[in-house]
Amino acid sequence: MKEKGKRKKEEVKKNKVEVKKNVGVKKEKMVKNVELKFGKDGLIPTIVQDDKTGDVLMVAYMNKESVKITLREKRTCFYSRSRKTLWRKGETSGCAQKVKKIYYDCDQDALLIRVVQKGVACHTGEWSCFFRRLI
Amino acid sequence: MKEKGKRKKEEVKKNKVEVKKNVGVKKEKMVKNVELKFGKDGLIPTIVQDDKTGDVLMVAYMNKESVKITLREKRTCFYSRSRKTLWRKGETSGCAQKVKKIYYDCDQDALLIRVVQKGVACHTGEWSCFFRRLI
Repeated sequence: MKEKGKRKKEEVKKNKVEVKKNVGVKKEKMVKNVELKFGKDGLIPTIVQDDKTGDVLMVAYMNKESVKITLREKRTCFYSRSRKTLWRKGETSGCAQKVKKIYYDCDQDALLIRVVQKGVACHTGEWSCFFRRLI
Repeated sequence: MKEKGKRKKEEVKKNKVEVKKNVGVKKEKMVKNVELKFGKDGLIPTIVQDDKTGDVLMVAYMNKESVKITLREKRTCFYSRSRKTLWRKGETSGCAQKVKKIYYDCDQDALLIRVVQKGVACHTGEWSCFFRRLI
């Protein structure tokens, strides 16, 4: 039982370190710590998934600045390739995305953000941008 | 009741047309019918999601050829940007992805494929490529 207790403590300790690291991440040391790989265009593709249902809502792109804003404000902020500017999701539509969790992939060149979606995700009025099926 | 029956028949008819259209899609008329927008590099980002759990498994890229192969073989086939070649997912690892549904987004420049994953999706041995959390 003691052994078990010890192991549990170690696990807690381990988790604490993890949390500490994440606090660092939150303090905009993220890029340095995790070394996300942005493309030649300075962008990283970002999948947005509804945290409750698991629905994939949209794909958009982030640059370093929008990643920092997203981490700071806990609302998604993307880089618009067509308008060549940052856009905070929901700034005009009101359909903001509250960030719950952010994952990065094995190659560190893609992000997955789980969110609470206010209203709908798609500018067409659909819940998800992936509302049409090919097969 | 007759009215109801009529409506039901119409719905069935409508669905049939839909299916017919999809058959066309399957016959490699897909690009012509749906007009997917490939990037300047000829690629379209593709999200792979586990059809049963909703887990986002990976992001990869497809070119026209790999989309056609995926539609034909009902197994995912991607374009490797580093190796500059097509790769059928699972051809070396055995971890193939059986295609269940394919969606495209409002801008027609991203795909979402729901699959039955054999084994694991990530080359590291993890179930999903998104196994590490930032926050």
